Amino acid sequence: MDAVIKIGGSLAEDPAGLRALCNRLGKIAKKHRVVVVPGGGKFADVVREFDRRYALSADISHRMAILGMDQFGLLLSQIIPNSCAVYLLNDAKQLSEIGVVPIFLPSRLMFQDDPLEHSWDVTSDSIAAYVASRLSADKVILVTDVDGIFTSDPKKRSDAKLINELSASELLELIHRTSVGKFLPKLLLNTQMDCYVVNGAYPERIEAILTGQHTVCTFVKSRIE
Amino acid sequence: MDAVIKIGGSLAEDPAGLRALCNRLGKIAKKHRVVVVPGGGKFADVVREFDRRYALSADISHRMAILGMDQFGLLLSQIIPNSCAVYLLNDAKQLSEIGVVPIFLPSRLMFQDDPLEHSWDVTSDSIAAYVASRLSADKVILVTDVDGIFTSDPKKRSDAKLINELSASELLELIHRTSVGKFLPKLLLNTQMDCYVVNGAYPERIEAILTGQHTVCTFVKSRIE
Repeated sequence: MDAVIKIGGSLAEDPAGLRALCNRLGKIAKKHRVVVVPGGGKFADVVREFDRRYALSADISHRMAILGMDQFGLLLSQIIPNSCAVYLLNDAKQLSEIGVVPIFLPSRLMFQDDPLEHSWDVTSDSIAAYVASRLSADKVILVTDVDGIFTSDPKKRSDAKLINELSASELLELIHRTSVGKFLPKLLLNTQMDCYVVNGAYPERIEAILTGQHTVCTFVKSRIE
Repeated sequence: MDAVIKIGGSLAEDPAGLRALCNRLGKIAKKHRVVVVPGGGKFADVVREFDRRYALSADISHRMAILGMDQFGLLLSQIIPNSCAVYLLNDAKQLSEIGVVPIFLPSRLMFQDDPLEHSWDVTSDSIAAYVASRLSADKVILVTDVDGIFTSDPKKRSDAKLINELSASELLELIHRTSVGKFLPKLLLNTQMDCYVVNGAYPERIEAILTGQHTVCTFVKSRIE
């Protein structure tokens, strides 16, 4: 498996941009073996809202948020050409080998195996990294609505600088995490999985990462050499 | 099975009211064999929003909305005392027999058996009636945020009158359906399932329906005598 590509839910706020990205993903899958993992976006935001209003248990809100990923995954299955929504890792593997884009709906795997802690620190980023490790993917690519990981929140501070490369240990220590879930660095360290954070508004950057070319993104180096 | 009770998603907008209703349901289950089916509420509303923005297929939005019912069902499983979320009809049946409140998450049954048409006319009301027919329940009780079915929308018109009783055929012809899905009357006619629409702000009315007492609600008579 070349890569697990997580499509951040925030990208759904720009339908034209998301459609352009999805069209490109359909083409990318002809050349690279990839599996798409959906983010949660607004579907998970509604869960957060009810979590606040009802003080839900971590177990319940975790499960509800994962169903939000399934929902966004079904949406993606309509707009990614040549794609198919699947629940099983094996189905994802087999489809990726014949150039189809498998969209992995995580609910069944996560409810059955239940490998990650139940908290809002475990976001779809961590779930994508876990799926990547289970598929023995070379890398996990987190596609979001900013250029990568910044020194501070680029949407709030104009002096925020893009970090081109850092280690998973450095990410763990970084206080101003702007676009990845808090649990992710631990998981990357455990699984020794290389990770890239990249802007979905520029789908060519995803292709550059897959072909090993230099591009605008953040590379989170997890392998100890 | 005495009844399938559908808890409308709109009731989630009033946490104190929903908690009171849920506490009562926990007690009702000690005396009556009931199964709870969740509505979609805000979880389904987000799907409607993306359906509009992305012109989703009926198949995809149908599946996404059913996942919204699973999400609300998980929330209910936290606030209904003595309850358990289940995917299988048989589990629901068995738990109801020992006084536990089974909360039926409809995704698995609906995705596998796929018995109803895929459109927004098929709402959680119809799914609850279908589940009731599969469980051979005596009745389906639709718990909502108004007193029943009115002659026009009671939230918009002060002259709206509550309909105490009507036949499923009459419901089919009624233009101003205020609180039930459009597909429901057809399903009630097909399954010959008696249906009650009742206000969740008065949980004692649900208990009155279960014990055959007269109360404020709408009775949709479906059995041909």
